[in-house]
Amino acid sequence: MTDLEIAQQATMKPIKDIAAQIGLGEDDIEPYGKYKAKISTKFEHGTPDPNHKLILVTSINPTPAGEGKSTVLVGLGDALSSLDKKTIIAIREPSMGPVMGMKGGATGGGYSQVMPMEDINLHFTGDMSALTSANNTLAALIDNYIQRDNELDLDPKRIIWKRVLDINDRALRNTITGLGGISQGVPRETGFDITAASELMAILCLATSIADLKTRISRIVVGYSSKREPITVGQLGFEDAITILLKDAIKPNLAQTLAHTPAIIHGGPFANIAHGCNSVAATMTGLNLADYTVTESGFGSDLGAEKFLDIKAPQLGKTPNAVVIVATVRALKYNGGQAKDALQEENLDALKTGMPNLLRHIANIKRYGLPVVVAINHFVSDTQAELDLIKKAVEADDTTAVITDSWAKGGEGTVALAEEVIKAADTDTTFNKLYDNKDSIEDKLNAVVTNVYGGRKAILSKKAARQAKQFTDLGWGNLPICIAKTQYSLSDDPKLLGAPTDFDIDVRELVPKIGAGFIVALTGNILTMPGLPKVPAAVNMHIDDDGKIEGLF
Amino acid sequence: MTDLEIAQQATMKPIKDIAAQIGLGEDDIEPYGKYKAKISTKFEHGTPDPNHKLILVTSINPTPAGEGKSTVLVGLGDALSSLDKKTIIAIREPSMGPVMGMKGGATGGGYSQVMPMEDINLHFTGDMSALTSANNTLAALIDNYIQRDNELDLDPKRIIWKRVLDINDRALRNTITGLGGISQGVPRETGFDITAASELMAILCLATSIADLKTRISRIVVGYSSKREPITVGQLGFEDAITILLKDAIKPNLAQTLAHTPAIIHGGPFANIAHGCNSVAATMTGLNLADYTVTESGFGSDLGAEKFLDIKAPQLGKTPNAVVIVATVRALKYNGGQAKDALQEENLDALKTGMPNLLRHIANIKRYGLPVVVAINHFVSDTQAELDLIKKAVEADDTTAVITDSWAKGGEGTVALAEEVIKAADTDTTFNKLYDNKDSIEDKLNAVVTNVYGGRKAILSKKAARQAKQFTDLGWGNLPICIAKTQYSLSDDPKLLGAPTDFDIDVRELVPKIGAGFIVALTGNILTMPGLPKVPAAVNMHIDDDGKIEGLF
Repeated sequence: MTDLEIAQQATMKPIKDIAAQIGLGEDDIEPYGKYKAKISTKFEHGTPDPNHKLILVTSINPTPAGEGKSTVLVGLGDALSSLDKKTIIAIREPSMGPVMGMKGGATGGGYSQVMPMEDINLHFTGDMSALTSANNTLAALIDNYIQRDNELDLDPKRIIWKRVLDINDRALRNTITGLGGISQGVPRETGFDITAASELMAILCLATSIADLKTRISRIVVGYSSKREPITVGQLGFEDAITILLKDAIKPNLAQTLAHTPAIIHGGPFANIAHGCNSVAATMTGLNLADYTVTESGFGSDLGAEKFLDIKAPQLGKTPNAVVIVATVRALKYNGGQAKDALQEENLDALKTGMPNLLRHIANIKRYGLPVVVAINHFVSDTQAELDLIKKAVEADDTTAVITDSWAKGGEGTVALAEEVIKAADTDTTFNKLYDNKDSIEDKLNAVVTNVYGGRKAILSKKAARQAKQFTDLGWGNLPICIAKTQYSLSDDPKLLGAPTDFDIDVRELVPKIGAGFIVALTGNILTMPGLPKVPAAVNMHIDDDGKIEGLF
Repeated sequence: MTDLEIAQQATMKPIKDIAAQIGLGEDDIEPYGKYKAKISTKFEHGTPDPNHKLILVTSINPTPAGEGKSTVLVGLGDALSSLDKKTIIAIREPSMGPVMGMKGGATGGGYSQVMPMEDINLHFTGDMSALTSANNTLAALIDNYIQRDNELDLDPKRIIWKRVLDINDRALRNTITGLGGISQGVPRETGFDITAASELMAILCLATSIADLKTRISRIVVGYSSKREPITVGQLGFEDAITILLKDAIKPNLAQTLAHTPAIIHGGPFANIAHGCNSVAATMTGLNLADYTVTESGFGSDLGAEKFLDIKAPQLGKTPNAVVIVATVRALKYNGGQAKDALQEENLDALKTGMPNLLRHIANIKRYGLPVVVAINHFVSDTQAELDLIKKAVEADDTTAVITDSWAKGGEGTVALAEEVIKAADTDTTFNKLYDNKDSIEDKLNAVVTNVYGGRKAILSKKAARQAKQFTDLGWGNLPICIAKTQYSLSDDPKLLGAPTDFDIDVRELVPKIGAGFIVALTGNILTMPGLPKVPAAVNMHIDDDGKIEGLF
């Protein structure tokens, strides 16, 4: 059966029953249909019980097909629930663009899924649309501003605020707008990103209240004056209107797993260009209401987990009690040089060669002082010898490894992992932060490159070096940094697999995300607007006269 | 008090109670928050009781500030309810773009409003966003198609499908997309419309089922091959994906008035470029469930009502039992030549000069064989002499006129109108259609120009004449026509006020909307993407730390 078929055959509980499981009454939620709701209780209220545990799920460097991190996460949530632990999973909401592009949603898989999966993968509760509207309303207000008196002398050539759509549309990457004559706008080169890459998405995911949301929106730098002075949304006076457009989107969404574990699915910033974690509001809500909150960050420990720990955790006021690293036989063979189309074949040599990748991710998490459990996510093609090899190598590294079967068996296939996670989360730990925000931009970059990526150092281009100085002069030097990098390698070269060491990271350009509160460092060629493949998933979809969908995933 | 303040102080009933009033159980609706719902019962099922009455509200040619048509409509619904008639109002949903631009929502006003007004004027249940996503996913699929093999030889210079946003953004009217080199798309000139102008909006509002929705989407002509052959969505194979994106948007939305009359608020196509009526699904649902369904069409009888009667009614299978024409002292003085900034001053001469405008609209409706009631919508600045003058002139024309005070007094101020409407709707009538779809495009255009606008004839430009022949050869000659024209005049010249006679209508260009099922005839300079004013409404909005909004309208 496909994921969609499994989901369509499942029975959901009414969302008010799911809410009741975590102590939320009907007045605490706003239903969106029968099986989705926004949590209307103010998430910022209440102080989480310090005994409530936060579990972070991350992974090794993946293959292009992904390693089932969400699937293991959902299975872990269900397994904890089955062990009578009051559990909430807190994950990102999917971007719709890729749903129409490459096959594959973002709601787990097999018997470890969140529901209603069709809704969640399509419009859900409208958060992505609200972000699109807010982002583009700001863009329209900016273009209208330069068309009119332009009192702050915003330079049309130096506007950095782009428009967004939640669609894979390569034709919008580079555009000229404002054509058609004097009354049609100011012609300028600009472009569109996918909505998940909007700074507003990052802001929504880091804001701790409506007031904080508005403050962050005010701080957004939309461009520079012709004298190169940064111009913010607050200076233009647009922050209230943009906040109004996001006042519902900031409320966390409640859904459920196939096994009826409450799932808070909220926010989905890109894990390369932004920090890649679900919202602080969602995770905070989980921590308030449940004994165990299981959350994720995008891609591997080098991308998502690093950003979770260095960017999100300070806003959350809490670091994880345990970290799960999802590894697969296939991805480790891929990291060991096995060809992409031969990953189903047993190859112990390739696996052995790829193992240092997993060990590097383990070391990364341990560096932060956090307990690690490795989840070896089982695929049908795995051989026992391969599974044994990984398990032994991890145990030799003094780390626990558990084989999970979340896709085929749901929570039942993830109980052993849950038991180890419970043990790990009871460990006393001291969080060991990677850098101090007061360090220079270069020092912070080097801290990530040497201590997380395992490389030599960050090499800044002339432009990036000039920007580092400018940004420091502008008072932005104290912000954490967010490195935009390929997810396929610990380095900035997607072909450098395993656990490379003798490499530098080339920082091409810095981008100020002052509203979100970090500086993005661009490495390699990171696309912020995906394209559609030769045969988009859209052409294989079907809907019948009763509205039943086939071929969505 | 402002409209927003009145709305914020009102008490709403839970939406399930409103649903219960019209016989819908909890399984028939999908709540969106506590006070909004989608009606999930299949709207196409059931045959309306022929005794159920349909009331259409239209108006004279308005001033730029509008004449309170929605306000009278809401008041009429509440008045009918207060007279123990089971009533549903079925109106359009607002476009968000103008909300951020010019002051003014689209949910009625004063004590005749629909609620929750903030939600309805902002994201509501996500229909506009779903349309934006569907429209732009289709655009991305088309651009991807020409970037790839392009087997049907779709000519990049002849693509007529544009992108849309629900934002007033003049800088997007004329754009070049696909820049940046060979892998970034095919560069071409294109642009964005506002979402309400998308053909998908017109389709959503005319479709009678999911199957009909998909059929109409298949028929959309997206452009032409280099041999000038039309290429449809169906030929490209994208219809299922686009239908999937609209499967929830097609369900009518339920809300309520301040007096708790059920309000179905669904669909909002532009009344100039498209047919300007709320959805067939919504009106059909009203007719199924209520004794009186009060609905609207955009602008005056020359624009909205003509299109309601010639385009929507055939899909609905029902014509109105009575038509209300909303007139105001101000707008008639404006039509009589009074300056825009002096409309508050009494001027009986200007009023007398403007009266023929109202008489022309009355004649238009009577031509269709429908009973008319004129609602003189009372404004504070009106004098008794002015009100009397209109009433007498209408009565001299053998038509009933009633003064309404819907803004200040809600349903109570509209009871006299309701009583006359009830009487009028009990009249036996024979609908007298304006043209036969089998008539030629030119004949249909002339039928509207002579019999509705009161002009001489339609003059087709060379281009339009060539298109009329092409479209007829392509088999599109049997479709109704939809004239895109200014709302300020019965002619195509916004400055020709009153009831002009010696004018022709210049048809500049024809646009095939084969999915919607009509041919648009462009006259004058109709903008399909509004711009923002010098001081956008957005800059005067405020949201406090608790999420309470001020200055929205």
